[in-house]
Amino acid sequence: MLIIGEKINGTRSEVREAVISRDEKFIGDLAKRQVEAGADVLDVNAGTSPEREPEDLVWLTKTVQDAVETQLCLDSANPKALAAALAVVEKTPFINSISGEPDRIEHILPLAADNGCQVIALALDDKGIPKGVSERISVVAKLISETRRSGVADSQVYVDPLILAISTDNQGGVVALETMRGIKESYPEVHLTAGLSNASFGMPARSLVNQAFLTLGIASGLDSAIMDPTDKSLVSAMLATELVLGRDRHCMSFNRAYRAGKLTITT
Amino acid sequence: MLIIGEKINGTRSEVREAVISRDEKFIGDLAKRQVEAGADVLDVNAGTSPEREPEDLVWLTKTVQDAVETQLCLDSANPKALAAALAVVEKTPFINSISGEPDRIEHILPLAADNGCQVIALALDDKGIPKGVSERISVVAKLISETRRSGVADSQVYVDPLILAISTDNQGGVVALETMRGIKESYPEVHLTAGLSNASFGMPARSLVNQAFLTLGIASGLDSAIMDPTDKSLVSAMLATELVLGRDRHCMSFNRAYRAGKLTITT
Repeated sequence: MLIIGEKINGTRSEVREAVISRDEKFIGDLAKRQVEAGADVLDVNAGTSPEREPEDLVWLTKTVQDAVETQLCLDSANPKALAAALAVVEKTPFINSISGEPDRIEHILPLAADNGCQVIALALDDKGIPKGVSERISVVAKLISETRRSGVADSQVYVDPLILAISTDNQGGVVALETMRGIKESYPEVHLTAGLSNASFGMPARSLVNQAFLTLGIASGLDSAIMDPTDKSLVSAMLATELVLGRDRHCMSFNRAYRAGKLTITT
Repeated sequence: MLIIGEKINGTRSEVREAVISRDEKFIGDLAKRQVEAGADVLDVNAGTSPEREPEDLVWLTKTVQDAVETQLCLDSANPKALAAALAVVEKTPFINSISGEPDRIEHILPLAADNGCQVIALALDDKGIPKGVSERISVVAKLISETRRSGVADSQVYVDPLILAISTDNQGGVVALETMRGIKESYPEVHLTAGLSNASFGMPARSLVNQAFLTLGIASGLDSAIMDPTDKSLVSAMLATELVLGRDRHCMSFNRAYRAGKLTITT
């Protein structure tokens, strides 16, 4: 399971303030904490206005890679910001994200293709997020025909099926899970990722909903998640699920996490 | 999801002592606490030696039904004890359990059939618990041909696929889950139940393993569990899973449990 740490995101006000005030310590600490908790990749999103975003994303990229050696996931809908950050990033990054929207296919997909990046592909197009499973899989199928045409291998593509908040759409979880299974069946090399916390938007005890979704997602082929790696309850659910699914040899990962105090204990 | 409360079980020393000393208050309280927590059925197991078990199970049955009005699950491998308890039980109970062992088919299955009981059927025979999925499903198939022959409807049968401790058998969880799916496919009317805590035997942070197994089990057709209904983390995982699977209309059960303080909050 590949964990993409979500916390360096300018849509969070304290992160945006740190970006604007060039607070290296705040950003560096946020990077280190996520890596220590187990993040494999760090998402970096400046979240500032289009005019200043290229400069901000460059600063953010440099600041994070000064603090940690972890692979980055450059997160922007702005091709200029992505191009600028690509010029300074040290390790080949993920790009977050493309979708079926023509603009992103035209301007962002080539950046991923030309730079050999892994790319997050959202299951939506210019008409929005399709409601049903088959429509959502159709959007992904078109998207994959585009990534293939651009020379991006399926194994570089991380499809996010998009989870609608269950509080407003009772079938939001089921549709995402069935979309995952459908994609995995048709495109076995493609990876699946998800922004977990969407499932529980508007609910109390959100962590419980996120844990259940993560467990069911892993059983449906989810092999990556954009999540808070410092959320012990998610890490616990992930390790327990891999254990139950027989993927944790000699229970080593689970036992090691337990000894390191990384598991929630709620007995 | 039908919850069978597991706590009145004479293999637990304090319960056996209460049975032997005829401690009505202890047993009555254990019954009430489980029902308040949400148990739909209460397992009653005297756990005493064969000579005294009939008398003990009769006392236990009467004591529990004096305390609560909940349906019971008479739990014994001793046909005499079961017959004695059947004579005093008020509501038609579950019988726990039959298996592919000839002795149980011959002496316990008729008690279930004659009394119109629901019956728990374990996926093992006189050669023990089969290792592989297909062998385990074969044992269940034979068992169901026996229950049908005895006139027990499939909808009265609760198959327990048996979970081997993952700490000693890495595939213990997977085999149980695949057995569940196989049984549900061949026998859609048959119910599935499981003694959840076996999965985590010998592990630290057992509750996490039990939660993950419960979530994956529900997605594989598990519609009942023999469990501790006072374990908030299990109840939480169950309700969150049903929510994510789109089975909790307007999120009512989850929200109600939250307001009643029945969910674990680990943020």
